[in-house]
Amino acid sequence: MKRDSIASAARILARRLDELGRVSDEPDRLTRTFLSPAMAQANRLVGGWMRQAGLTVREDQVGNLVGRWEPEGGPAGAPVEQANSAINRKSKTLLFASHLDTVRNAGRFDGALGVVLPIMALEEVRRRREQLPFAVEILGFSEEEAVRFADAYIGSKAYAGQLRAADLKLRDTRGATLREVIEAHAGKKIVLPKSAHRSADLLGYIEVHIEQGPVLEAENLGVGVVSGIASQIRGRLIFRGKAGHAGTTPMHLREDALAGAAEFLLFAETFARAHSPLVATVGMITVPSGAANVIAGEAVISLDVRHPIDGTCRRSLVQLIARAQKIARRRKLSCEWQQTMQHVATRCSSELTTLLHESVSAVQGRSFGLASGAGHDAVVMAKLTPIAMLFVRCRGGLSHHPDEYASRVDLAAALRVVVDFIERLATKISRDAAGSDSATSGFSKAGRRPARRQSK
Amino acid sequence: MKRDSIASAARILARRLDELGRVSDEPDRLTRTFLSPAMAQANRLVGGWMRQAGLTVREDQVGNLVGRWEPEGGPAGAPVEQANSAINRKSKTLLFASHLDTVRNAGRFDGALGVVLPIMALEEVRRRREQLPFAVEILGFSEEEAVRFADAYIGSKAYAGQLRAADLKLRDTRGATLREVIEAHAGKKIVLPKSAHRSADLLGYIEVHIEQGPVLEAENLGVGVVSGIASQIRGRLIFRGKAGHAGTTPMHLREDALAGAAEFLLFAETFARAHSPLVATVGMITVPSGAANVIAGEAVISLDVRHPIDGTCRRSLVQLIARAQKIARRRKLSCEWQQTMQHVATRCSSELTTLLHESVSAVQGRSFGLASGAGHDAVVMAKLTPIAMLFVRCRGGLSHHPDEYASRVDLAAALRVVVDFIERLATKISRDAAGSDSATSGFSKAGRRPARRQSK
Repeated sequence: MKRDSIASAARILARRLDELGRVSDEPDRLTRTFLSPAMAQANRLVGGWMRQAGLTVREDQVGNLVGRWEPEGGPAGAPVEQANSAINRKSKTLLFASHLDTVRNAGRFDGALGVVLPIMALEEVRRRREQLPFAVEILGFSEEEAVRFADAYIGSKAYAGQLRAADLKLRDTRGATLREVIEAHAGKKIVLPKSAHRSADLLGYIEVHIEQGPVLEAENLGVGVVSGIASQIRGRLIFRGKAGHAGTTPMHLREDALAGAAEFLLFAETFARAHSPLVATVGMITVPSGAANVIAGEAVISLDVRHPIDGTCRRSLVQLIARAQKIARRRKLSCEWQQTMQHVATRCSSELTTLLHESVSAVQGRSFGLASGAGHDAVVMAKLTPIAMLFVRCRGGLSHHPDEYASRVDLAAALRVVVDFIERLATKISRDAAGSDSATSGFSKAGRRPARRQSK
Repeated sequence: MKRDSIASAARILARRLDELGRVSDEPDRLTRTFLSPAMAQANRLVGGWMRQAGLTVREDQVGNLVGRWEPEGGPAGAPVEQANSAINRKSKTLLFASHLDTVRNAGRFDGALGVVLPIMALEEVRRRREQLPFAVEILGFSEEEAVRFADAYIGSKAYAGQLRAADLKLRDTRGATLREVIEAHAGKKIVLPKSAHRSADLLGYIEVHIEQGPVLEAENLGVGVVSGIASQIRGRLIFRGKAGHAGTTPMHLREDALAGAAEFLLFAETFARAHSPLVATVGMITVPSGAANVIAGEAVISLDVRHPIDGTCRRSLVQLIARAQKIARRRKLSCEWQQTMQHVATRCSSELTTLLHESVSAVQGRSFGLASGAGHDAVVMAKLTPIAMLFVRCRGGLSHHPDEYASRVDLAAALRVVVDFIERLATKISRDAAGSDSATSGFSKAGRRPARRQSK
């Protein structure tokens, strides 16, 4: 009976993702960008499902969709006085979120899954039990993919009070600033939004997302638990040599910038292979003024290096650049590194992640932890509250593509895990509350001492 | 005295190349394209220098500038009857030529040198001796660089009767066909031009050109004799793998098309180094839809392979493609070769080249032969008459660039060589004519039996 209701929910989930996947700013492909008409329509559609599930729905000033469910007995924020107790008297809030915007020509799972799935998981939990000892908020962030503005995470940054004055000066391709776009949408002057919650009022943040990589598929597993979000450094390497005539310059007299870049590219590949889970990617390469009959005088490559550990990521980059310069010297080229981005690693909460592992083990027999090489809203939210992430297998590791696909079976597994997780968490919090004052029922960020709380 | 007059001529030559280098279709850089206003102006300027040198000047229907000098005693074509002789009774014609068009943002030596230098060499020869036993034609071809139309050698093809109906259908960037452009210039309907000369009426074709490579500079020589023009095959290799997320795809699960292309590129470099004088160049590389955070799903590279010997060039290409496919298989990529161009090797006349070597030895003490990896008008003219080429050192091997430069000293050396060559040839022909009927005074293409001739 339990299995049946989840299977049925998974069918509805798949149908809803299909339906949401047709809400687009472009006629023949899926594209939803920050505060676009399709985003408004997506918020209406998902907001409707939230209401059906018993959530109170609102939209904040940057277009984040916010669905809130309160445990019975009134708003979670209502103080419950208990004599002789210094513990936090409010019900805390558990957040589930991901983003509802997409890349251009997107798939229908990236982001959307992490918003729609928790709605159905919460419905299922409520079908099974009368009460939860915490509130649940399900969020559809309005921007994560950095399509309209060059910077990502506008939605979660605004929600977590992380948006900065400099961010509001970003301009979209039509020249409008982020501030102008938000104010036009909100219909009023805005001030930099404060965090929607105090950290002390939150239990944590859970993001369900397709893996966007092939690891779970290779492991033959439907879901896995994210151990952390990798440290990432990105930039470009510019090799400069001497342009020359392809027909008249003997090989030994060439100073071929592209050959230098190619040699480095292969080294980076070999180096990363030998230092798993390091990944190093050259995804872009340009030979300015390149021609078939001209030896490349300059070659520019992108370099993206990621590793779960900040120090290892940085040290790997240093080693890679040193080799690039060695290659350049040997070939009489110059080589310049220009860093364009650096994200430090984000650690997942060990308590939330442990619970999630227990749920995954219960559902699919074996749990599995994997680092996320991609950034997610969870990176921003980690500044506000402990985070955990559940990855769902996607076919061929493919994402950011219309063929992006997670199977019905894997969606059902993910639903079961989230339902189990909410119940496990509820049980733990109730048990802790029933125990002594010293019981921990808040979840700390990795390394921080758990905050005390007691449900009423 | 001899040295002084050449040094003075070299100064004038350098000044004229500067002046011609300012005749451009673009305000701040040198660009002259087929039948453009600047080309008409260049023809007027160079035509004036030809007239000063005693040449009769005309322009043909495709804009080639034709300056002709006849030996005294009337037009070379006037029949000189000699009883009991079956030999050719006309004075033959020696051709000097190169092109007056340029690439965009060109240097002032490429092409122009081979037109202006022979004018001054002929003046110098005539200052020294009363008569020559042959006519001289100096040509400024109207198109060699394939800038306005995608195909090269319009000028020399038209002059040599090699222009085909298909060529006339080529369109420029504004959509006009080559036929329309020529007819607008000629002011009349054109038929496909016949060769300006019968092969039997020609002594041969000499092209003086900057080397456009660094070999003479490396040899510390001002001039060198071209041994032949290389066989050339050009095309593109398309590697196809699987696009993937740069952060979430472990190294061992990647099918990185760009890494495959890079591996091939390095192999091609190593292979060509080991098989000198083979040259293999990857000058263009593209990753369609490439992004810093996406593993390349496709990489397209150009490949240009050249060798003086046709068979070796072809076999080398076959070996390179085989290795590309082996690399692709090992990396789970596909690899496709698309050939876009093939030029067979052009051999230089051994007789003309031997004479040219004698002149170079006389002028700079040591002669030196080198293959031309670049195509030249000589490739087309070789179908009509024996050819020889003299290369002039250019600084850093640089060409197709405003900084293209040949020194005054090297220009003087080239002038001396051409003056010496014309005198040597005249002496040889006069001596042969003074000898028996069996003396050879025509120059065969490599491998063909010399044609007989006798000057009057």
